Order: sequence, then structure tokens, then C-alpha cells
Amino acid sequence: MQATYHALCEHGYADLTIKHIGDEFEKSKSLLYYHYDSKDELLVDFLGFMLENFTSDVPVDASEDAHAHLQALLDHVLPPTLDDERYEFTSAMMELRAQASHDAGYREQFTRTDRFFRRRIADVVRDGVESGAFHDVDPEATAALLVTTINGSMLERVTTDDAADPIRATRRELDAYVEARLLANDPE
Amino acid sequence: MQATYHALCEHGYADLTIKHIGDEFEKSKSLLYYHYDSKDELLVDFLGFMLENFTSDVPVDASEDAHAHLQALLDHVLPPTLDDERYEFTSAMMELRAQASHDAGYREQFTRTDRFFRRRIADVVRDGVESGAFHDVDPEATAALLVTTINGSMLERVTTDDAADPIRATRRELDAYVEARLLANDPE
Repeated sequence: MQATYHALCEHGYADLTIKHIGDEFEKSKSLLYYHYDSKDELLVDFLGFMLENFTSDVPVDASEDAHAHLQALLDHVLPPTLDDERYEFTSAMMELRAQASHDAGYREQFTRTDRFFRRRIADVVRDGVESGAFHDVDPEATAALLVTTINGSMLERVTTDDAADPIRATRRELDAYVEARLLANDPE
Repeated sequence: MQATYHALCEHGYADLTIKHIGDEFEKSKSLLYYHYDSKDELLVDFLGFMLENFTSDVPVDASEDAHAHLQALLDHVLPPTLDDERYEFTSAMMELRAQASHDAGYREQFTRTDRFFRRRIADVVRDGVESGAFHDVDPEATAALLVTTINGSMLERVTTDDAADPIRATRRELDAYVEARLLANDPE
């Protein structure tokens, strides 16, 4: 899976071959051919593996207050810019995601990924509502909007020129949304 | 361009060939081959053509108040579900958009498309701020968030199963955002 990650960052989806992955793979290449008939079969497995990894990668700290927790999550998924490796990886992810429009295996993985992120964010929002830090909003709807925004920003980042300014503006406005719609710390 | 539209809806990007477009094309196919060396060259032109068409397709009514205008825009680009033809087309668009991650011609077109929509929405928000219907928000930041959400919802719609519920939730929360952050009709 490490080999797939590196090959995907280096070659992108369109130019990727199982041979490229094999070149990154220290163990016998024949193992790879034995397990996978096509690069798509391998990549769908790779997405499942990535999803498991997301689980440990996304910052989670129950001791933090809900607002700080939400900010940390957004800082993690919506940074102002991406370093080269993360840019290449996001780029490859968007190419894989486009495959999901005509491939049920990919679609299943991205359905799980989005669902995972929505659930994770809804949990944070629910904590905030329960602690009184947030207004009594619908955690699922809040999470749906945030995940859609995150997906949209990843897409824009790798498919448009000069995306940094709009992405920063989106993030700024998302913070304003959190303040106007969620935060319950005003004195009323 | 009509022929390209139909061929793209029917075959999607990956399976599309210039021959498919030629099959939809009433005039001589040789014309097509004369003008375009590759399907990507043709598709980039097609995207430019689509953008010109968006200009007339997106509802615009200066006589409406800004809030109604914004709602009409969102109804147009974020409907609860898509009919088959629009689904196929959105699907193909996302595949083309994924090409933009490694093709400068596609990237240029999608950069223009996003910029066009941001400008259009920022104009509506600015009208609202000027008329006093909206709070004194940053029209560019508001537009950036809305366009990112629209892009994210198009992506989710064609790359995940059961997207209808999350899309509805996103739209509901977007309306709540407009109310909490933009609308200035509260009595305070």
C-alpha cells in the first residue's frame, strides 16, 4: 500500500501501471500480479486501506472543547496550501474519484469515505450542542455542508490555477459560518 | 458542440472517441477530424462553449430582491436530484475536471468556469449588501464558499451511492447559513 501511495503520487492515476507500483515494491513483483488482475482492483483496495488510516490520522481530542476540535479538523483538511506530496496525492485522489462515476468499486469506497467524515464531524457538532457550546443545530446537516465544502475545495485545488486565494476565502467564510450559525457564546 | 454534448452524456469521458462524436454529427465527419487532432482538444473547446452557454442559462433577474435571486441560483445549481440526462452530463463533467489535474488546457477552462460563477454570485451578494437586505459581508468570500459547496455537491452526486440525502442536508444547511450570516431582516 506504501508502494501504491508513492507510485500514485509520482505518476497520477492515468499513467499509473501495476509495473510502476511493482517498481516501488520491495518484495517480489509477482506477488502483486498474483493478487491483482488490474490496477483498478488494486486501487480500490488501496482506498479501503487509506480509509482505515484516515481514522488514526484525523485529529481527535475529546478533552478539547467542541469549537477547538472543529477548528483542528478544518485546519487539517482545509489548510491554506498543500505541500508538493499532498498536492500530488490529492490530485491522484480526484482522478480516482472521477472513476467512481462509472465504477461501482470506487463508488463504494468514496461513499464510505464521505460517510466516515460526515459521521466524525457530526459527532463533534453533537458534542458541542450537548455541552452548550453550539446552538441546537442539526449535526448531520452541519456535517453534510462541511464535508461537501471539503470535497469541493480538494477538487478546486487540483483542477484550477490560482486556487489558493479562493480556498483561503472559502475557509474564512466557513469560520464565519461556524461563528454565525453554531457558536452559542454570544450574551443573548 | 451539440454532438459532443450528446456523445459525452451517452459514453462518458473515458469511453468517448472522436468517432462517437462523429456518429452524432450530421455534417461530414471529416470536418471533425480536420479541426481536431485529439478528443481532448475538442473537449477543451467544448468546455469553452459550455461556459458561454452557462452565461445565458443561469437565472438572472435584477428586479428580484437579492435573497430571492440567490435562492433561484441555488435552486438551479443544487436541486435535490438530477434527471438522467443531467446526471450523465455532470458525471462526464467531473471526469473532464479530473483531467484538469494534469492537463493545462482543461485546467484553464475550469479556472474560468469557477471564476465566472464566483463573480456572478458575488454580484448578487453585493447587490444584497448595498440594498440592505444582507449584512455587510465580504461578497467574494461568500461566493467562494458557495461555489466550493456547489462543486463539492456535484462531485458527491456522481461519485457516491445514496447522495440524495446528504445533498438535501447540505442544501438545507446552506439555506440556514444564508439566514444566519447574510439575511439582515431580523429586528435587531
